Amino acid sequence: MGIAHLGHAELRVKDLEASREFFTEALGLFVSEETDDQVFLRAWQDWDHHTLVLTQAPESSLGHVAWRVEAAEDLRDFERRLGRAGVEVQWVEGSRGHGDSLRFRSPNTGIPLELYWEVEKFRNQDEGLESRLPSHPQRYTGKGVAPRRFDHVNFLVDDVRQSQEWFTEALGIRHNYYVVGSDEARLGSWMSKTNLSHEIAFMRNRRQDGDHLHHVAYFLDSPDVLIRGATILIDAGYRIEWGPGTHGTSGAIFLYVFEPSGHRVEVWTGGFLVFAPDWEPIRWDPETAPLGLEMWGSPVPDSYFAYGTPLLPSQAGAALA
Amino acid sequence: MGIAHLGHAELRVKDLEASREFFTEALGLFVSEETDDQVFLRAWQDWDHHTLVLTQAPESSLGHVAWRVEAAEDLRDFERRLGRAGVEVQWVEGSRGHGDSLRFRSPNTGIPLELYWEVEKFRNQDEGLESRLPSHPQRYTGKGVAPRRFDHVNFLVDDVRQSQEWFTEALGIRHNYYVVGSDEARLGSWMSKTNLSHEIAFMRNRRQDGDHLHHVAYFLDSPDVLIRGATILIDAGYRIEWGPGTHGTSGAIFLYVFEPSGHRVEVWTGGFLVFAPDWEPIRWDPETAPLGLEMWGSPVPDSYFAYGTPLLPSQAGAALA
Amino acid sequence: MGIAHLGHAELRVKDLEASREFFTEALGLFVSEETDDQVFLRAWQDWDHHTLVLTQAPESSLGHVAWRVEAAEDLRDFERRLGRAGVEVQWVEGSRGHGDSLRFRSPNTGIPLELYWEVEKFRNQDEGLESRLPSHPQRYTGKGVAPRRFDHVNFLVDDVRQSQEWFTEALGIRHNYYVVGSDEARLGSWMSKTNLSHEIAFMRNRRQDGDHLHHVAYFLDSPDVLIRGATILIDAGYRIEWGPGTHGTSGAIFLYVFEPSGHRVEVWTGGFLVFAPDWEPIRWDPETAPLGLEMWGSPVPDSYFAYGTPLLPSQAGAALA
Amino acid sequence: MGIAHLGHAELRVKDLEASREFFTEALGLFVSEETDDQVFLRAWQDWDHHTLVLTQAPESSLGHVAWRVEAAEDLRDFERRLGRAGVEVQWVEGSRGHGDSLRFRSPNTGIPLELYWEVEKFRNQDEGLESRLPSHPQRYTGKGVAPRRFDHVNFLVDDVRQSQEWFTEALGIRHNYYVVGSDEARLGSWMSKTNLSHEIAFMRNRRQDGDHLHHVAYFLDSPDVLIRGATILIDAGYRIEWGPGTHGTSGAIFLYVFEPSGHRVEVWTGGFLVFAPDWEPIRWDPETAPLGLEMWGSPVPDSYFAYGTPLLPSQAGAALA
Repeated sequence: MGIAHLGHAELRVKDLEASREFFTEALGLFVSEETDDQVFLRAWQDWDHHTLVLTQAPESSLGHVAWRVEAAEDLRDFERRLGRAGVEVQWVEGSRGHGDSLRFRSPNTGIPLELYWEVEKFRNQDEGLESRLPSHPQRYTGKGVAPRRFDHVNFLVDDVRQSQEWFTEALGIRHNYYVVGSDEARLGSWMSKTNLSHEIAFMRNRRQDGDHLHHVAYFLDSPDVLIRGATILIDAGYRIEWGPGTHGTSGAIFLYVFEPSGHRVEVWTGGFLVFAPDWEPIRWDPETAPLGLEMWGSPVPDSYFAYGTPLLPSQAGAALA
Repeated sequence: MGIAHLGHAELRVKDLEASREFFTEALGLFVSEETDDQVFLRAWQDWDHHTLVLTQAPESSLGHVAWRVEAAEDLRDFERRLGRAGVEVQWVEGSRGHGDSLRFRSPNTGIPLELYWEVEKFRNQDEGLESRLPSHPQRYTGKGVAPRRFDHVNFLVDDVRQSQEWFTEALGIRHNYYVVGSDEARLGSWMSKTNLSHEIAFMRNRRQDGDHLHHVAYFLDSPDVLIRGATILIDAGYRIEWGPGTHGTSGAIFLYVFEPSGHRVEVWTGGFLVFAPDWEPIRWDPETAPLGLEMWGSPVPDSYFAYGTPLLPSQAGAALA
Repeated sequence: MGIAHLGHAELRVKDLEASREFFTEALGLFVSEETDDQVFLRAWQDWDHHTLVLTQAPESSLGHVAWRVEAAEDLRDFERRLGRAGVEVQWVEGSRGHGDSLRFRSPNTGIPLELYWEVEKFRNQDEGLESRLPSHPQRYTGKGVAPRRFDHVNFLVDDVRQSQEWFTEALGIRHNYYVVGSDEARLGSWMSKTNLSHEIAFMRNRRQDGDHLHHVAYFLDSPDVLIRGATILIDAGYRIEWGPGTHGTSGAIFLYVFEPSGHRVEVWTGGFLVFAPDWEPIRWDPETAPLGLEMWGSPVPDSYFAYGTPLLPSQAGAALA
Repeated sequence: MGIAHLGHAELRVKDLEASREFFTEALGLFVSEETDDQVFLRAWQDWDHHTLVLTQAPESSLGHVAWRVEAAEDLRDFERRLGRAGVEVQWVEGSRGHGDSLRFRSPNTGIPLELYWEVEKFRNQDEGLESRLPSHPQRYTGKGVAPRRFDHVNFLVDDVRQSQEWFTEALGIRHNYYVVGSDEARLGSWMSKTNLSHEIAFMRNRRQDGDHLHHVAYFLDSPDVLIRGATILIDAGYRIEWGPGTHGTSGAIFLYVFEPSGHRVEVWTGGFLVFAPDWEPIRWDPETAPLGLEMWGSPVPDSYFAYGTPLLPSQAGAALA
């Protein structure tokens, strides 16, 4: 009972055409549906209708982050519990790819969140993209960076500890590892409901100017695929912010790149899974944190802890697609 | 509530020294503890005391397969439920690596099973094997095939459907995909409690001469690591039964090798995870099954559906270590 | 002085459209020029105008295999030396991609050969394919299997030893390794002029029905790329004959696939280079030959030593493009 | 006629024990011979007796760099030609691994060089290291970073252009690519006699304080192996200076690490080969040079163009081992 897994993210983008080009041609996602101002995307082995929505908007921001619940009745249950906790919730009618959903903001951080149950499974029937394998929702073409699946979202927040605690207490997301500074200030926390090392993470915003989206991430099959992807991205003219490197915290071999509307996108591979039901969050203190941040020793770009894209302003909440 | 994840397997081996050599020097597991007649092993990022036990025995067989439960009270709960279902259970006092456990046989298949809750976490302090990273229970040395973690067990059984159904109904293990023959006979079923594509699997024993262990499996970081591992195994004189190949069912890129006491061992990488709480088992019928079995087209060795190692005979049950 | 390196091959194909689709969309070669009945192809980092020519023809066959010489004057030199040895040579006017060339047949084997000196370097200026890097003749897109460069050609011949000796004596191609059968019969020989382990190879035709093209080969960057490529080829509906496997002889990790007009194509990676100027050919005798053929142990398909595509009949020689 | 290929390098090390530990346990080279103050090392598929010599010395420096010639008579020929050009040459009696050699210093740069012809091939007969494959001079164990073969040497010099020109004119080493600064100053040149993209390279010493060894390099089989190696090196406590990154110039995916006596060591993979006999050196100008230096965008460490280890002082020349 509760949340099952992270489902998708909506990125509002100021240049839909350029962002669409990045995500389809360079990153290698596939369009499952498209309207005048929205593109629904998925990685080749994402099972659901979409894991990313691009929405044309005057300014780039995070539209929302959506989690699937474990059973239909969980939606009503969350409505009650969140209401009791003073969180304002809103029902949104189901449309493309999933059924009715519950929308709300996380307190303090103000992250636009969505919970849903019904979902449309994807099976590509387009000529040239249909697969002979029941285990392939579509053919594997290897186009672009070619991630296998959607993985996680990461936020720059002013108060990491508060953010982590609310997601653990209100939504039941497990705390897997964290970094503390010399004054015991929480610098980062990584969390998941599934066995993944993290589906959502919070890192301290060095500028302390409010909460921002840090990045959305897709998962690759191997270090080799990541390195091949780096060359594809560069030769196509995009800018890699950082990587390839390895976060010692998760073992994630990573690459961060900016898409044309300004959002940071991560592709990564490797890392560990969490199976223990009584998992103790791993603590990284000032001595070990540098290895946790990048174990091979490459310097952190200044932008990494200072740049993010805004969360959709609250007054725009009613317009969430 | 219920089972959390697959924890470890015990292989009884007729040549402990040769098997130890295979698992440590060629496969690249590490010894966490050792007695006169037992060796406790783990992959470099297995978090618990061990994931494999080798026990010296007159004949090679599967000693037992152990699952960790989600909470301490689950053990008593399973004792009651299994007892009501007529399964004979036995308490075994905790010893190396974990606390008191519940032992029993799966009905019909007779697989020796163990459930436990308390577990000893591992942290290598040996000179040359300790790591500076809190996320590494020990240093990563890359020695041998160097799997990251224990993954699954697989059985050859006379009745796949019956086996799958009992594990789903009595133990709550989710059914993820299956293969049916031309007469609708169930040829294989793959199952898990976690997000892994399978922690346990059943395949039809072509000889129909009783249930056997097919293999135990460890997980590798990439196809490249697997191919490197194939060369290490061959140059060290071991025999690869099959692979590298890809099971289209899971996307697993696999390699099967025989260890010196006769047990089949798989190392694999890739594949998908299952996140959907309402996952529908994927059906592979006679038309698609060949792609499911090996999608690149390499022929299945005759031994694959006919050879396994015995389950520990029941009368020996009391002696389980 | 003499031959510099293998340059390109011409495959005559009975289904130009299907073959073009295979080589561009699945294998990931790029078209540098195209006419009504010919397609000129190259891998992304092939520096010359083309390394493969597809020519529409009533029957599939090998058109010719071309080698670049080390200097302009080598062409006249080879004309004299081959003439003295009784080999009929013919000058062909330069056209697409290279200058005037010398055409002839290898004695006994009758392989259609070409020597040339002048060559057109390639630089892609097409929108979306031009690269910012002077070291990239075109952008790296990762499309399809995406080999880096053309590598070698391989023939099934009735007399391996005779074929090898002529190429060594008349053309100066170094003999790098060979396999002998129980009766000392030569079963295969691999040769090169460059540091590659082989640019040309001869294997014994089990059917002894004349010399055939066995395959043309392109080189991949890593085992991971090869495994990714296997899945692309299968999901696109092509048939892999053999692989992934490793030839112990060269260390080549290989994959053989049939293109739609019936030619066998290899993609491979790994292996060793030959630097010693006094290299002694490595001998593989009946005891070690199985490891040399496939060191991991996968069985050789029956077709491997029995199927090839014909050499262009001699009377058609005048029509070579 | 002339030089065949780069053969080996001698590193004089102030801490032989620590350097030996690095090269054998972490890098994964193998000892083929050992004396009180020297260790002879090779990668698993290096065919010759050694490709690296470690010599105990009061200060770390480059002992010498050795090239094999194409035929026995080339040694006398070089003796004459170098003598005519005013280069002082010295004959050294053959000892471990190769025959008599010619020693001299490159003018201006003063690099201690050696030419030799006779060489001892290596075949490991030690228990546990012998291979069943004639193509494996020893068993492949995958130990440590596990490079396949020795690759190249690189120098920091005050005058790149002069250095390159002498090696091309006096020794016949082909110039493959170079970088020029905004004032047309030559910043780097990469050269080879074989098909490798470089066997020797010169980069401008930012401190202009004389010529130094920049690094010696070994070749890896794939990007995945390099990334695995990075984690091995870090977990063993060594410091990576730079990488993984990609030099756009050669396509080399690289990693630089310092061994305990202070020498920089590179391991790398990928990149292109040079086959054209009329290869035009690729020019990288100020606009493209950043991509040439590191195409993914990671910043160059300050030490990279400023730190090297000394060349063995000339007066010590007579003592070269």
